[in-house]
Amino acid sequence: MTLKKIMLMGATGSVGTQALDVIAAHPDLFELVGFAYGDNIAKAREIIEKFSPKIVVSASDANQVELAQAFPEIESLSGSDGLIELVSVSDYDILLNAIVGSVGLLPTLEAIKLGHDIALANKETLVVAGDTIIAEAARTGSKILPVDSEHAAIFQVLQGVKRKDVRSLTITASGGSFRDKKREELVDVTLESALAHPNWSMGAKITLDSATMVNKGLEVIEAHHLFDMPYDDIHVVMHRESVVHSMITLNDGAVLAQLGASDMREPIQYALAYPRHITMQNEKDFDLTELASLHFEKMDLVRFPMLDLAYRVGKLGGGYPAVYNAANEVANRAFRDGKISFLAIEQLITRAVFGHMEFDGQSLQQILATDAKTRKKVATWIDTLSSEKANS
Amino acid sequence: MTLKKIMLMGATGSVGTQALDVIAAHPDLFELVGFAYGDNIAKAREIIEKFSPKIVVSASDANQVELAQAFPEIESLSGSDGLIELVSVSDYDILLNAIVGSVGLLPTLEAIKLGHDIALANKETLVVAGDTIIAEAARTGSKILPVDSEHAAIFQVLQGVKRKDVRSLTITASGGSFRDKKREELVDVTLESALAHPNWSMGAKITLDSATMVNKGLEVIEAHHLFDMPYDDIHVVMHRESVVHSMITLNDGAVLAQLGASDMREPIQYALAYPRHITMQNEKDFDLTELASLHFEKMDLVRFPMLDLAYRVGKLGGGYPAVYNAANEVANRAFRDGKISFLAIEQLITRAVFGHMEFDGQSLQQILATDAKTRKKVATWIDTLSSEKANS
Repeated sequence: MTLKKIMLMGATGSVGTQALDVIAAHPDLFELVGFAYGDNIAKAREIIEKFSPKIVVSASDANQVELAQAFPEIESLSGSDGLIELVSVSDYDILLNAIVGSVGLLPTLEAIKLGHDIALANKETLVVAGDTIIAEAARTGSKILPVDSEHAAIFQVLQGVKRKDVRSLTITASGGSFRDKKREELVDVTLESALAHPNWSMGAKITLDSATMVNKGLEVIEAHHLFDMPYDDIHVVMHRESVVHSMITLNDGAVLAQLGASDMREPIQYALAYPRHITMQNEKDFDLTELASLHFEKMDLVRFPMLDLAYRVGKLGGGYPAVYNAANEVANRAFRDGKISFLAIEQLITRAVFGHMEFDGQSLQQILATDAKTRKKVATWIDTLSSEKANS
Repeated sequence: MTLKKIMLMGATGSVGTQALDVIAAHPDLFELVGFAYGDNIAKAREIIEKFSPKIVVSASDANQVELAQAFPEIESLSGSDGLIELVSVSDYDILLNAIVGSVGLLPTLEAIKLGHDIALANKETLVVAGDTIIAEAARTGSKILPVDSEHAAIFQVLQGVKRKDVRSLTITASGGSFRDKKREELVDVTLESALAHPNWSMGAKITLDSATMVNKGLEVIEAHHLFDMPYDDIHVVMHRESVVHSMITLNDGAVLAQLGASDMREPIQYALAYPRHITMQNEKDFDLTELASLHFEKMDLVRFPMLDLAYRVGKLGGGYPAVYNAANEVANRAFRDGKISFLAIEQLITRAVFGHMEFDGQSLQQILATDAKTRKKVATWIDTLSSEKANS
């Protein structure tokens, strides 16, 4: 392997931090040439000092100015324009998109247009603009390397297989932090309990998405685009141990699965080192005989209506997945801000989806307008809910 | 895929019969051009009538003559010389060696020398002559496609992986028909109970080898040769459900596994259709959520000393694996013939292995002489045991 130059969006988040561990563990293979981050400037400073990148993008102008003064030798940019400029810098091999939410979409599309490979940890990119992204990647030869553990598992076992021999995909779901609660027990669950994921250490937004099962819904839509698979051939099974990360079923009945510890560094590293499975530093212990047993259960779509709804919006296509995703982003945030109840997340997403009435083939511009419109609408509904709550 | 011409050794056995099902299910892909069988001439007649092969080899001269008279249009041969001639016939693409025991070795080597691909269901070929076979295959470009479900699983998941990224192999073991018996309970087990395998429908010899765990020992040695893997990196775990057929662990900690129903037709068909996973006729149902849970336990080498001994003979190399295998073939047969007890199988193999004193690099001729010598020696010991038993 030759040295790969990495551009990292979302460097201070959970995936970004683990990606930096992987990059630091293999200085002969990986070099961080630039990164973007949200608001954690203290962490951004540490990254600059440790990795000496050439370019950094802060979300805010204030942080941009501060970094420009502290590190005059590197290029300091800010905001969405900064992200576009970051990915337009010519000298990198792979863009790792680890930004949470749909803000990562346009820079990713730009990187694909320039023919760069993409390590994709950002679900929303494919959920919102899957058709456009996949078509552009096919046109420029850009590889989309999935970083989500489920898609990485499928991607890894697909390597030795002809696409036409694949009958179906099976995505495993841990069930999230409320998997053993009935629906009536969800009425007054707290943020703290929602963020206590049984298996994976992840950011707050995605951990909450696991509890609502929206995360699995987004993964189904993402899998549809990544692997060109009809929705009816994408299955989800509850697998409490999260040991089998996902599976494919072939036409002869053989099932190929990827298993391992719950360690996001593995899919991150595989995406960066693709197609190599190189040595993992400080690997987590994994011994199937210590786990003793693995369980698989059918998903209950009445218990988890957001998974059912994901299949619906996926099949409807057009702007529907964007509506589902945007409504969720706003509702997820509102729950974390204490503005709405847990079950209100589902109500808001469902209301947004069933209120969407544009069925025609949608351009990316139209989908992005739908995305923006949905966010506003849902924010308004949340304000109404909040004031009702305050008045009751 | 273009039509593949198949030569089948061991056509009336368990693997042979299932191979014929696979061939019959895909007349557009597979053609049976010839076959060899043991003594079941009635079944051989059926195969000839159904598949119209060009050549058939009977084990006995009497059956050869009978078939020559009944089917004057096809070439009828017999014995070991007939097997060599069968594989020397030029017009076939792949030899499926489904003969039980080491009699399949020399014709397989001959087919490899001629550059034919080999679908290998016969364990003894690699156990006895692994170094020679692998070297010859490398020289002529002949592919060795494993048919055993465990090796087929490993082979399938290795397809998308670089060899140097593979850290270890994990072969699963059902535990065989006596897996829940303690050693003291093995003293007077019957043949009937030994042949009641919990998961797989296989021939009598291999089912008994599962009960003694010699089968898993042979698989470890075979895996060493097939996948060029050091013995210390080949692990065996007890997996009662036989759902995970085997696994590989990569340098980044990812484990790739192949799972499925207990249906030997899958690995047979994959070997014949390689590298395609084509549609399986009358596929067995397989639903992980119906199995509910999968279990993995460490192998107890005190309980299963034949597995431990296999690692020893494998590491010693030279004629040792041949001694282990030959002693087992004779002892396995003697137990099935009611001449010795179940635990005497282990005693005879151990005695033969520890009595073997030739440590030098061995040629294939020397190994075959060791094989023959071991069979004689063990047969003598069995006669002594039998007369002691008769006199007691």
